[in-house]
Amino acid sequence: MTKKAAGEAVLAAKQRLGIGWAQLAEAIGRPPAWTVAALLGQHPVPEAEARIVVRVLELDDDVRWALQAQPTRGALESPVPTDPTIYRFYEVLQVYGPAIKELIHEEFGDGIMSAINFRLDVRREADPAGDRVVVTLDGKFLPYQW
Amino acid sequence: MTKKAAGEAVLAAKQRLGIGWAQLAEAIGRPPAWTVAALLGQHPVPEAEARIVVRVLELDDDVRWALQAQPTRGALESPVPTDPTIYRFYEVLQVYGPAIKELIHEEFGDGIMSAINFRLDVRREADPAGDRVVVTLDGKFLPYQW
Amino acid sequence: MTKKAAGEAVLAAKQRLGIGWAQLAEAIGRPPAWTVAALLGQHPVPEAEARIVVRVLELDDDVRWALQAQPTRGALESPVPTDPTIYRFYEVLQVYGPAIKELIHEEFGDGIMSAINFRLDVRREADPAGDRVVVTLDGKFLPYQW
Amino acid sequence: MTKKAAGEAVLAAKQRLGIGWAQLAEAIGRPPAWTVAALLGQHPVPEAEARIVVRVLELDDDVRWALQAQPTRGALESPVPTDPTIYRFYEVLQVYGPAIKELIHEEFGDGIMSAINFRLDVRREADPAGDRVVVTLDGKFLPYQW
Amino acid sequence: MTKKAAGEAVLAAKQRLGIGWAQLAEAIGRPPAWTVAALLGQHPVPEAEARIVVRVLELDDDVRWALQAQPTRGALESPVPTDPTIYRFYEVLQVYGPAIKELIHEEFGDGIMSAINFRLDVRREADPAGDRVVVTLDGKFLPYQW
Amino acid sequence: MTKKAAGEAVLAAKQRLGIGWAQLAEAIGRPPAWTVAALLGQHPVPEAEARIVVRVLELDDDVRWALQAQPTRGALESPVPTDPTIYRFYEVLQVYGPAIKELIHEEFGDGIMSAINFRLDVRREADPAGDRVVVTLDGKFLPYQW
Amino acid sequence: MTKKAAGEAVLAAKQRLGIGWAQLAEAIGRPPAWTVAALLGQHPVPEAEARIVVRVLELDDDVRWALQAQPTRGALESPVPTDPTIYRFYEVLQVYGPAIKELIHEEFGDGIMSAINFRLDVRREADPAGDRVVVTLDGKFLPYQW
Amino acid sequence: MTKKAAGEAVLAAKQRLGIGWAQLAEAIGRPPAWTVAALLGQHPVPEAEARIVVRVLELDDDVRWALQAQPTRGALESPVPTDPTIYRFYEVLQVYGPAIKELIHEEFGDGIMSAINFRLDVRREADPAGDRVVVTLDGKFLPYQW
Amino acid sequence: MTKKAAGEAVLAAKQRLGIGWAQLAEAIGRPPAWTVAALLGQHPVPEAEARIVVRVLELDDDVRWALQAQPTRGALESPVPTDPTIYRFYEVLQVYGPAIKELIHEEFGDGIMSAINFRLDVRREADPAGDRVVVTLDGKFLPYQW
Amino acid sequence: MTKKAAGEAVLAAKQRLGIGWAQLAEAIGRPPAWTVAALLGQHPVPEAEARIVVRVLELDDDVRWALQAQPTRGALESPVPTDPTIYRFYEVLQVYGPAIKELIHEEFGDGIMSAINFRLDVRREADPAGDRVVVTLDGKFLPYQW
Repeated sequence: MTKKAAGEAVLAAKQRLGIGWAQLAEAIGRPPAWTVAALLGQHPVPEAEARIVVRVLELDDDVRWALQAQPTRGALESPVPTDPTIYRFYEVLQVYGPAIKELIHEEFGDGIMSAINFRLDVRREADPAGDRVVVTLDGKFLPYQW
Repeated sequence: MTKKAAGEAVLAAKQRLGIGWAQLAEAIGRPPAWTVAALLGQHPVPEAEARIVVRVLELDDDVRWALQAQPTRGALESPVPTDPTIYRFYEVLQVYGPAIKELIHEEFGDGIMSAINFRLDVRREADPAGDRVVVTLDGKFLPYQW
Repeated sequence: MTKKAAGEAVLAAKQRLGIGWAQLAEAIGRPPAWTVAALLGQHPVPEAEARIVVRVLELDDDVRWALQAQPTRGALESPVPTDPTIYRFYEVLQVYGPAIKELIHEEFGDGIMSAINFRLDVRREADPAGDRVVVTLDGKFLPYQW
Repeated sequence: MTKKAAGEAVLAAKQRLGIGWAQLAEAIGRPPAWTVAALLGQHPVPEAEARIVVRVLELDDDVRWALQAQPTRGALESPVPTDPTIYRFYEVLQVYGPAIKELIHEEFGDGIMSAINFRLDVRREADPAGDRVVVTLDGKFLPYQW
Repeated sequence: MTKKAAGEAVLAAKQRLGIGWAQLAEAIGRPPAWTVAALLGQHPVPEAEARIVVRVLELDDDVRWALQAQPTRGALESPVPTDPTIYRFYEVLQVYGPAIKELIHEEFGDGIMSAINFRLDVRREADPAGDRVVVTLDGKFLPYQW
Repeated sequence: MTKKAAGEAVLAAKQRLGIGWAQLAEAIGRPPAWTVAALLGQHPVPEAEARIVVRVLELDDDVRWALQAQPTRGALESPVPTDPTIYRFYEVLQVYGPAIKELIHEEFGDGIMSAINFRLDVRREADPAGDRVVVTLDGKFLPYQW
Repeated sequence: MTKKAAGEAVLAAKQRLGIGWAQLAEAIGRPPAWTVAALLGQHPVPEAEARIVVRVLELDDDVRWALQAQPTRGALESPVPTDPTIYRFYEVLQVYGPAIKELIHEEFGDGIMSAINFRLDVRREADPAGDRVVVTLDGKFLPYQW
Repeated sequence: MTKKAAGEAVLAAKQRLGIGWAQLAEAIGRPPAWTVAALLGQHPVPEAEARIVVRVLELDDDVRWALQAQPTRGALESPVPTDPTIYRFYEVLQVYGPAIKELIHEEFGDGIMSAINFRLDVRREADPAGDRVVVTLDGKFLPYQW
Repeated sequence: MTKKAAGEAVLAAKQRLGIGWAQLAEAIGRPPAWTVAALLGQHPVPEAEARIVVRVLELDDDVRWALQAQPTRGALESPVPTDPTIYRFYEVLQVYGPAIKELIHEEFGDGIMSAINFRLDVRREADPAGDRVVVTLDGKFLPYQW
Repeated sequence: MTKKAAGEAVLAAKQRLGIGWAQLAEAIGRPPAWTVAALLGQHPVPEAEARIVVRVLELDDDVRWALQAQPTRGALESPVPTDPTIYRFYEVLQVYGPAIKELIHEEFGDGIMSAINFRLDVRREADPAGDRVVVTLDGKFLPYQW
């Protein structure tokens, strides 16, 4: 079983059992964003957590083995995503990418924000003009170092 | 003069005069991220702000006209960016895109985070294990609505 | 069952039972264009409507679950569509895209027509020189707002 | 002078003289959408109209020759547009393309909406929940005919 | 059964039964080029003709339903075809496309040759220097008309 | 001077002097389609004909040298043409390519229509339902031969 | 059975039975290069030869039918091949393509080397500095001829 | 001056002075195919030969410096060449690539034909049925060796 | 069974049996990097080694046949890899490719590092500031040689 | 002046003055590989080093400003490089990429080799069977860390 098939099994079980991501995240003691990314196949799930996931979602050991396996990462179906929810983040990159780059270099010098030593968070912020989605990307700065 | 040429003129003048983005942002009373994106050609700069910019940077009116013009947005040189600083954000999308999508849908239902009614912020967070780059994307939730 | 497979099941059942889109749209009390897009997998169908659809089309619950699931949107088989009926709309974008952009900016200022808070309609307009297809795209204006 | 350069000259002159598209359209007695598309290089402008345009915009005959020339059409800078205002229409095609196709075939049979015998209109519709952009595509139906 | 699978079933049955395209075209009273294109999945086949085809080729009703279905057209496996017989027509477009465009515009004005109100014919022309393939493309002229 | 620049010089001179392709073709004693293709840079023009062309169009010897040079052929700006007049021929290939291939193989056996030993013709055919564009592609059959 | 599947069946049978291409070529009385290309699906194999092939390789009639079928040619998995053995020939084209073109035009005038009336040969040439692969491409010259 | 510009200068001088590739090759004592490839910018030309070339072609030292420079190789304008003369070699790769690969592996084992320790030759072979272009690719076999 | 499927069988068996690459490499007496590449389908595995592998991993003879077969090489799922671990090497090529080229040419003259007569090694180097991955690419220099 | 133009100025000056990379590297007290990458525009050069470079190479201050500027990195002209010297490294990635990934994960766990905290070295290793190019990539291991 591939990690992609495992991810689809997780989604189907969640829908069937009416279990939310927050519940799953709590069950394995991990932040929600990590939990979702990992169960959709982008991180290897440690054995202990994988056992909990398959028990909660009533899945079998094939799913567990797949969840534990080391992924070949990359979740977009094409270089430019077509799903509107995901595309908006690509658009942010098209419009603000160089600005982000300038601000990182001005503040930190030459280097990058790590996408490995990295965490992210998605939360709702109430706003009378319409609630807002706030996504925080938080990665260690890595200076170019020879 | 194209907006791209105007952006390059801004960068060259900044380097020559030793002026930082924070200074420019303050001079026009706008947040730094908006300022950088706008001066690099991704937003039209209102006339008043454009006048300040060209005065501070000792640039001429051709640059000002270009800054004021309505942009055709899109700053990446190719569908997949090659610059490592920018690529890491694309990688975040490759690894975490579907997770962000799941979390938005779980919290808000079917819809998207607007990239138009949107602001972002880049800041440094001190960390003994190495300072961190924290990028906050903050957009209004737009539900699919017929 | 994927949403794509569910859409194909819907098409096959429609052809077999001789049921039209208008009938389906009426059965679930939704506009035709939304109905078609949703049943072809581009919108999640609420449970109540999904139950009606599978009953009318004599399909089983697997189809219903798939119709209810949150889609990853994007219906074109390649960046440039090859089907002539769909391609003509792409051609309209090639020829009139910048003109539409200019007119939106002149009338509304900097911003976009939402494709989320959006509805569309396809209707026939009788014309002695040959009937016409009239497609109305109707989306909320979203101004760039920081 | 290429038609693209002529289009840029038109844009610059409009900005400099503070003349709007509506004024230009009225001056040449054509609908606004046609006027913008034609002056941006997607339609040949008849000599009479071209003479008016260059007079109103204080441009020279090189621009006029270019406006009159037969275009090689196609205005998008890449198969998938990056400008958010234009991208939204591409997204509409991604999400609603097959639905539009189904509705055309159900209503008219096998065939297409012409993009040649075609007109479009962009207008503002006041709405208390936020004004709306309404784009009407109106093309003759062409049945597949051997 | 997809239209593509139906087309392959037709090809296999033709080979097995030793039936030619000319025979099939005559059986359904249609021109050969239309017949081939339709049976390979590029046109919907009316029910009467579809019944004849499956009877002559000893195929079952699944094939018939697929032949009758409305196609999503587009037969090339990639934007640039690799099969040499088909590629030569793409090469003709590469070498003569703009010349054809010029000649159409000189003779007819601004507009296109319809590919919908269209027929084509492939025939052999005896020639002592080697017989020739003559392909005639015959489409209605459609003037750009607002 | 490149062959492309020479082609643009030819187009500009034609427009300025009001000379048509038919006239140019007659002046050099060649069929119109060949003449247009050659002057747009897809065939080397023999010296005698090139001299006539530059004299008739009042162009200089730089243009003549370029017209005489051996071309690197290929006139489409991208793998899929965007100009509607040219795109329709690509669409014909998308819809009828495999049908043409089948008919060539049934009539001639395994092989191709040459695009080198090849001529084409574009003509108007009067038709009460609207005049038609008739394009005839006429190439020698080349059998696969080891 | 597709021609690709037939080719894979041939490769598997060859490996299992320890039969070489030379043997197969001799058995059907054809040059080795033609034999390999044909059995891998790039040429239709005449019935007599196909019967020999399936007898020698102990394959069944499904394979034979597939071998006899007219191919849609094109064996590279992507426009640029990734297999190093095949890539080297693409590299030769990248480095020497224009030189080959110049030499053909200088020697023969405007035209091409046919890839249809064509044969090729691959042989080993002993060399004390390391044996050499010698590939001979031998095609009829086809002059551009209207 | 780039190597590409130098190659164009060489082509223009050859045409102006009526000097052939054979003559140039003889003047510098190199095989014709190497000479053409090198002067078109795909090999660095040693200083002695470069001096001869610019003297014979009456070019200046800028051209000579460019000819001597180390190239970044790659002469095709796009991954798939459009020029028919060059395309035929790409087509050969599409049709015969895997066959060549099989024959190399059967004769030599696992490895490649070098495109570096490599020479090629283009010659005319008289043939009553039409003269033939014979291109010989001759490269050292390199076995995979750890 | 394809080589890809065989590679997946190897990975699954390794995970199930808790056997490491080092163990497998030792069992067949080959360097680890070669072993992994070969078992993942990029090199043909000699029969003796293949027999050991399937015995150690408790796999059957289908896997063995696939491991022994000659590969069509190329392991990246798209021209630009998306997996971060692999992408970093592509990024190295983006940033340092021309520098490596310059240094090879300065030291060795015109030529390449062979990727065929080639070995590589991946090892850990302890470092107080964080251990390092050291990858050594070691290929024979091949001078351009006619 | 762009960083690319500065890099070309550096290359031209080096060739004109007969100065090698080793000399330049020594003059600025940096490793050769860093020096080349930086002067070709992939790293910002600190002011002190930039001053030395332009003095040694007799270049002016425009070059110096460009060398000091922050680069937008990415040196390949297309996603797949065509230059044979650079392509070989891409080929290594195609053939050995997944093997390197496996070995890194087995040795270090889930994570990557940094391309930022990274150095590389290119050296010649004498070998009686032909000298070898040895490229060492040496980057800090970065574990996935939330």
